[in-house]
Amino acid sequence: MNIAIVGVGLIGGSVAITLKEKQVVKKVIGVDKSESNLKKALQLGLIDEAATLDTAIQEADVIFLTMPVDAILSSLSHILDQVTNQVIIDMGSTKTAIIEAIAHHPKRGRLVAAHPMAGTEYSGPEAAIPGLFKGKVMVYVDATNSDDDAFEIADAITDHLEMQTTFMNAREHDVHTAYVSHISHITSFALALTVLEKEKSQGRIFELAGSGFESTVRLAKSSPDMWTPIFRQNRENVLEVLREHIKQLQNVYDVLAAEDYETFHKLIKKSNKIRRILK
Amino acid sequence: MNIAIVGVGLIGGSVAITLKEKQVVKKVIGVDKSESNLKKALQLGLIDEAATLDTAIQEADVIFLTMPVDAILSSLSHILDQVTNQVIIDMGSTKTAIIEAIAHHPKRGRLVAAHPMAGTEYSGPEAAIPGLFKGKVMVYVDATNSDDDAFEIADAITDHLEMQTTFMNAREHDVHTAYVSHISHITSFALALTVLEKEKSQGRIFELAGSGFESTVRLAKSSPDMWTPIFRQNRENVLEVLREHIKQLQNVYDVLAAEDYETFHKLIKKSNKIRRILK
Repeated sequence: MNIAIVGVGLIGGSVAITLKEKQVVKKVIGVDKSESNLKKALQLGLIDEAATLDTAIQEADVIFLTMPVDAILSSLSHILDQVTNQVIIDMGSTKTAIIEAIAHHPKRGRLVAAHPMAGTEYSGPEAAIPGLFKGKVMVYVDATNSDDDAFEIADAITDHLEMQTTFMNAREHDVHTAYVSHISHITSFALALTVLEKEKSQGRIFELAGSGFESTVRLAKSSPDMWTPIFRQNRENVLEVLREHIKQLQNVYDVLAAEDYETFHKLIKKSNKIRRILK
Repeated sequence: MNIAIVGVGLIGGSVAITLKEKQVVKKVIGVDKSESNLKKALQLGLIDEAATLDTAIQEADVIFLTMPVDAILSSLSHILDQVTNQVIIDMGSTKTAIIEAIAHHPKRGRLVAAHPMAGTEYSGPEAAIPGLFKGKVMVYVDATNSDDDAFEIADAITDHLEMQTTFMNAREHDVHTAYVSHISHITSFALALTVLEKEKSQGRIFELAGSGFESTVRLAKSSPDMWTPIFRQNRENVLEVLREHIKQLQNVYDVLAAEDYETFHKLIKKSNKIRRILK
């Protein structure tokens, strides 16, 4: 099996490494609008050769879309135009806009929309690591609209990545990711901006930053090129969760301002229920 | 050297384990208002014997205050009344209220106010771990108000804990911890509450929770008994940073609502400066 990785960054590079390790691919073809990313990916051995998108589509059996979601949205129709029986796996973090855009394409069935719930705050080919996907969840979106054989090929790859699976429609997917992924990034961005602003007048503030701070703010290292298009495509859901989150914070503020420590204690205790979810 | 650990939880227990490992203590006396905590601490070998506060003060050379900060505030004057040349190390997370309360006590010099910037989201004796403090920062607060010999003894212990050190006054300490520790807890509490609320109507929402979500929300597992008094004592600083944080979030909201993606990209890029701080 030859595969094409369109977007040789954290996700695409990690797919390539893992499938090479498992010896299930013959050739990995890299496509990227950045020459320097392609060069690095070749040097790191993530890909065997670099090619243009159109050449890669012709040579590959499976085409992974792992570029930012605005690039997926703008190129997917063109990609589908050119496939015969290849499989396209879209690994983007948003689904509704992308799937709607090609809903009536005659080759729609060749697309498997999947979202690996895995990542780090780093980006680019250097960020690619083996084992990134192991034990994590692959979300299949609107899977009944993929051809059976295309889905089976994608699912065999998910097996090689050692992932668990779940199924959703596009609307559910985008609401859920707004709540458990996109909002986490926004709170980290805002927390970083709050503290960086204070540093201007207080200087030594980061001396005391410990592991708690690091953990809540590390996502603020995330790439703006990757994340701006995600927020653009999932804007409505993100605005909804952000409204609710600001309301919760304002409530914490009001309770503390009113010195109502009994309610404050109850709020923390209620938030402790998250223990049920986190290991 | 005999030591007393007043509050045998995460911090007190970890101090005990580490100093025992280093073989610098003869006897560890545990004091706790919870009988069950004392029993667990004895079983776990964190302490050698349990005692009342007054007995522990008489028998110990160094007394560690590692209970919640409301208990430190209410008992410190009584503890100072009873010391002769013992050293008291207050390891609480807030300083201004506690230090002001005993500012004019004749035994003020026996107190070393220190705050180890180390912890986890877990609490109680079972949460105690060796190596908790290694490489972390010990903040000495208003150190010039401690007797020289008391400070030297405390600093030798900080050395045994393998910590780095820094010095601040109480006001600076409380402002800085509001920004790099206390606010992180509040954002985690509020994020947990936001998502737990949504789960009621969406059900499967946590299926997609990945490492990014876990990292921004894990502090929501923190103990309300420990944290409510911290927010009470550091209320004004926490309200200030919370106001600023809500303002930053509201700005992110407004920019996204206005579909101003150029500014949105700039905000993420600005927040990326946090890379300078985090390893």
